Amino acid sequence: MKVSIVGVTGYSGLELVRLLNNHKNAEIVSIHASKDIGSSLSDIYPYLKGICDLKIDAVDSQSIMEKADLVFLATPSGVAKDLACDFVAADFPLIDLSGDHRLPASLYERWYQKTAQTDSVLARFTYALSEYTDLKGKRFIANPGCYATAAELALIPLLKAQAIDLTSIIVDAKSGLTGAGKALSASSHFVNVHDNYVTYKLNRHQHIPEIVQELQLFDSQLQHIQFSTSLLPVNRGIMATCYVKLKQPLSHEAITALYQDCYADKFFVRIQQELPELHNVIGSNFADIGFAYNPPTNVLTVVSVIDNLIKGAAGQAVQNFNLMCGFDEKTGLLAVPSYL
Amino acid sequence: MKVSIVGVTGYSGLELVRLLNNHKNAEIVSIHASKDIGSSLSDIYPYLKGICDLKIDAVDSQSIMEKADLVFLATPSGVAKDLACDFVAADFPLIDLSGDHRLPASLYERWYQKTAQTDSVLARFTYALSEYTDLKGKRFIANPGCYATAAELALIPLLKAQAIDLTSIIVDAKSGLTGAGKALSASSHFVNVHDNYVTYKLNRHQHIPEIVQELQLFDSQLQHIQFSTSLLPVNRGIMATCYVKLKQPLSHEAITALYQDCYADKFFVRIQQELPELHNVIGSNFADIGFAYNPPTNVLTVVSVIDNLIKGAAGQAVQNFNLMCGFDEKTGLLAVPSYL
Amino acid sequence: MKVSIVGVTGYSGLELVRLLNNHKNAEIVSIHASKDIGSSLSDIYPYLKGICDLKIDAVDSQSIMEKADLVFLATPSGVAKDLACDFVAADFPLIDLSGDHRLPASLYERWYQKTAQTDSVLARFTYALSEYTDLKGKRFIANPGCYATAAELALIPLLKAQAIDLTSIIVDAKSGLTGAGKALSASSHFVNVHDNYVTYKLNRHQHIPEIVQELQLFDSQLQHIQFSTSLLPVNRGIMATCYVKLKQPLSHEAITALYQDCYADKFFVRIQQELPELHNVIGSNFADIGFAYNPPTNVLTVVSVIDNLIKGAAGQAVQNFNLMCGFDEKTGLLAVPSYL
Amino acid sequence: MKVSIVGVTGYSGLELVRLLNNHKNAEIVSIHASKDIGSSLSDIYPYLKGICDLKIDAVDSQSIMEKADLVFLATPSGVAKDLACDFVAADFPLIDLSGDHRLPASLYERWYQKTAQTDSVLARFTYALSEYTDLKGKRFIANPGCYATAAELALIPLLKAQAIDLTSIIVDAKSGLTGAGKALSASSHFVNVHDNYVTYKLNRHQHIPEIVQELQLFDSQLQHIQFSTSLLPVNRGIMATCYVKLKQPLSHEAITALYQDCYADKFFVRIQQELPELHNVIGSNFADIGFAYNPPTNVLTVVSVIDNLIKGAAGQAVQNFNLMCGFDEKTGLLAVPSYL
Repeated sequence: MKVSIVGVTGYSGLELVRLLNNHKNAEIVSIHASKDIGSSLSDIYPYLKGICDLKIDAVDSQSIMEKADLVFLATPSGVAKDLACDFVAADFPLIDLSGDHRLPASLYERWYQKTAQTDSVLARFTYALSEYTDLKGKRFIANPGCYATAAELALIPLLKAQAIDLTSIIVDAKSGLTGAGKALSASSHFVNVHDNYVTYKLNRHQHIPEIVQELQLFDSQLQHIQFSTSLLPVNRGIMATCYVKLKQPLSHEAITALYQDCYADKFFVRIQQELPELHNVIGSNFADIGFAYNPPTNVLTVVSVIDNLIKGAAGQAVQNFNLMCGFDEKTGLLAVPSYL
Repeated sequence: MKVSIVGVTGYSGLELVRLLNNHKNAEIVSIHASKDIGSSLSDIYPYLKGICDLKIDAVDSQSIMEKADLVFLATPSGVAKDLACDFVAADFPLIDLSGDHRLPASLYERWYQKTAQTDSVLARFTYALSEYTDLKGKRFIANPGCYATAAELALIPLLKAQAIDLTSIIVDAKSGLTGAGKALSASSHFVNVHDNYVTYKLNRHQHIPEIVQELQLFDSQLQHIQFSTSLLPVNRGIMATCYVKLKQPLSHEAITALYQDCYADKFFVRIQQELPELHNVIGSNFADIGFAYNPPTNVLTVVSVIDNLIKGAAGQAVQNFNLMCGFDEKTGLLAVPSYL
Repeated sequence: MKVSIVGVTGYSGLELVRLLNNHKNAEIVSIHASKDIGSSLSDIYPYLKGICDLKIDAVDSQSIMEKADLVFLATPSGVAKDLACDFVAADFPLIDLSGDHRLPASLYERWYQKTAQTDSVLARFTYALSEYTDLKGKRFIANPGCYATAAELALIPLLKAQAIDLTSIIVDAKSGLTGAGKALSASSHFVNVHDNYVTYKLNRHQHIPEIVQELQLFDSQLQHIQFSTSLLPVNRGIMATCYVKLKQPLSHEAITALYQDCYADKFFVRIQQELPELHNVIGSNFADIGFAYNPPTNVLTVVSVIDNLIKGAAGQAVQNFNLMCGFDEKTGLLAVPSYL
Repeated sequence: MKVSIVGVTGYSGLELVRLLNNHKNAEIVSIHASKDIGSSLSDIYPYLKGICDLKIDAVDSQSIMEKADLVFLATPSGVAKDLACDFVAADFPLIDLSGDHRLPASLYERWYQKTAQTDSVLARFTYALSEYTDLKGKRFIANPGCYATAAELALIPLLKAQAIDLTSIIVDAKSGLTGAGKALSASSHFVNVHDNYVTYKLNRHQHIPEIVQELQLFDSQLQHIQFSTSLLPVNRGIMATCYVKLKQPLSHEAITALYQDCYADKFFVRIQQELPELHNVIGSNFADIGFAYNPPTNVLTVVSVIDNLIKGAAGQAVQNFNLMCGFDEKTGLLAVPSYL
């Protein structure tokens, strides 16, 4: 498959280059951005010298459709929706890593404070949490958000089993700085992040409606979740710490069984005996999940961790690409967590 | 006041040296440890050269009582309880920074997995969260734990106001590595902490009964709290993120008033308009508190931050020392947060 | 003394607020910046709530001279030189933390790529490395640069003793990110600094001529130094690792004596037996120096460390303020290194 | 090729597992350590769950030689030399990542302070800096040290060209903490490393004689180098900053040509136009080199960076394995630097 990447100089775009470079069924035929047109990617990012020396092209849907078989959009929310229209009109396969095609227009406009995609285009897209979506025959993929991926993988098994009080869900999620993108702001200046821990967008994060919408597929009674997001002084990694009240007490074994039922045949989701830490997964496409139940409070704590740029963005996009194309879902995604 | 410090080479002991060095009413007359006896403290810790060049003495209660007017015990839990007996027997003022005199014997033995202090000695101690304890005339102080300080300062106003559902309290607390002490272990090795975030002792942290006990003073109906502790890859700082359900919705102004009522005349507790971050307080004795209420879930999120070594240990010990001795509580504690 | 701070929202300005807040002979009567005029400093920087709630004023030399007895300029290079003129014309005491009054005009324009101060104003300024400058009766101070302070304190004793080959000096200096200021750029984005180490401005750093000029006071034969600057992934701290060839071998004792001769009565410079590390000095005004001689290569390695915001900027400015005013040089500067 | 790894739970051993897991010509058939015998590797290191679930075996050379075709020794210096003897006696291929077979016995004993390997066994080993060693037909490899790799790759081209004053070489090298191994010590405790920068083993690091010995192959006149080693507060990465005086001035183009001559056909060594930073190479087997010449001081600064665990240890071991076995040297080593 020949693929193009639009938004190649953002964090997700660069990570796509990194992953697809070692993908035996994919060839990157063109890379696109709104700046640095005509420069070699490796002149701007010397770490890619000898790996990806392609020139950056302007974004031109016609030329992409001539060269490639599929396009990845790794542009910011608000930009992707305009770029997507030509491809959808031409029925040209597309995977959008942004938030532009995940929500109905009304929710999108409320949470993103931007104009939404048209309903007719939105209707063509499939929201694709890889482990829970059948992608055969799909051509337009809305790739999930990073926090959303971590939270949904942790909570869906509990909803499927109808095991919890739906009004009790509290998610305390933490992310490394790559999750906030490369835009310059005081909140991403090294001095303000280092040796600090900052809670932001409390009750206002745009992944909240995405999570609620996905969870409602598994229990339509769910109405709201309490969700907080904070910045950890690290580059990569998300931990979603989920607190829920059980309808009735469950043994550790019962909870383990409940999770293993969901993920027994899912290579990239691992149920761990101990609570997972970020090091479990950084550098890989794995999502690790662990939990502990506390009888006195009746609270089950579920902890999930992912690399926000891989399972939370470019890795899941490649996994979805594999599933769409009928490849083994692991193709190009076998990097072992770097751990150290 | 002449003071001695026992356990001077631990993190809390070193921080006491740092704070008391600039305290106009205190003079450190002797320092004690179980190792490096006879060495100058500044030979072992060259950052103290010219600041504290005292020799380290063995622990000898008799000699301390001869030289000093008060002793700080900055030794680990399990050690302090034995050292305390002589001083209590002699009615010699003592501030214990360890956990040995905070809980009744049965709770202590269950949560610390160690033999408890005798009941008669325990009865002499006052648990002293500075902002809520009258210390005039007290001679034996159990200084609060670091996590406990952060959680109690955040939650007490809500309990006093009877504003929350007592079964709903969930505290997601995070600490820098100095909170874990200087003992060597794989979990404190740089490589395992850096770029990581690790949840530990879930539902088993020994500060849980301490918090419950203190909160029960303000509402005896409280039975349990859900409390998690994690390690942030920083040296100093604790954030306690507290989630509670309100009995009935409250406006931001009403919640602000509720907190300001409690802390209007408390210099070291600041109610902030925005959620506080670690940088607000590191290097100082301040505890900063902020909050946000979310009507759809009826959850109030309260965030408190402290420097675990100062307000969470040595600073509060000095504050308690000031209050015991009738000094201005701010004496020696006016360092401004380092922020940068 | 009543003092004003211009450029209060920069890193050096904020650090001046922190230090002068606890200075018994100084009172901050006004703070000035080019933005956020009319806001309380603590509204913008909540960590200062209750500590410095002054309103930010526009920069107005006339009003400053009416309110205050001395002004600190903590503005960027290129800005300070214009602000200074009114004060110099009025003979009003001023300490400039920027690079605008450290070099003759020709050198300044070459290394800073900016228009220089006029010669007549420059002539009124004294470059004040505190340990080597007599400040009695001085009214206009050019406060040294951060890298320059670390390098000069390490090298001057060797030049005074004529102990080294002057063509052999190589300084490999490293700084935390606060040294680069709060301006937003890709090079200060957290993701680019964290887990990285970046050498910048090699052979082009503007502190090079400042160091050469100061060293030439002690040996006029010196012509050039090799000087590199790199960014450490920390907030505070500079280490200058200096490599020099000795004219003839010296014992460790002889080198120690040579350094102690220079600094015996200088409280803030400490000669350490071991090579110092950043932790030795962070949070304090100390400069720590250590060294090791290697007979096979005839190279003496001298390592000096400072907190770039304190001894490298605001702390040395306060030290110079103390010396100008005839106060004890330690006034307001007794904070112990935070170490942990 | 079937391979065994001895010392699998050390940092280099774990990194070998990571790299060899994706190596199409290698299969890990057994893993060995001195502790945790009988446990699954992924029980101890959950990040390897589903990747390497092999049980840890005791070290037994006979059983290794029955199962495997080649053995990697990733044990500490001092241990490897004893383990090697059986394999050498049986002429069984071996790659030793430790320092035990890099130096003649006399130098080894002086710098490592341990008993050396016997001369007859030492004589069978080839020191293999991959880019400069012909490994066809070799059976016993002494894999270079991490600092040594970075320094040698940077300096050899200058020696080959006889371009520099041999008495002028000064290397200021910095490493992340994985370079110091997983042993517990105060110097690797998170609190002591974080926000710090520490120079250690100055003039005493055991890689000094290794570098000198290798450089002497290219210019036998070389006698000594000045070499310093410091710990950066990061997990991975080495930068070697090399300062040398040129015999006669060279243009940037001439120096570039000199380096490109050496490395034109070496995939893993990249000559960069800008000084490289750690992010250039972390997560990959690349060594990036850049430089800048300063006419006033006649000093050429050469900067090389590597990932200490990959090109500085396990990656170079796999590269040497490939070269020994006649595979493409890039096999299993195509991971792109993680950059973010």
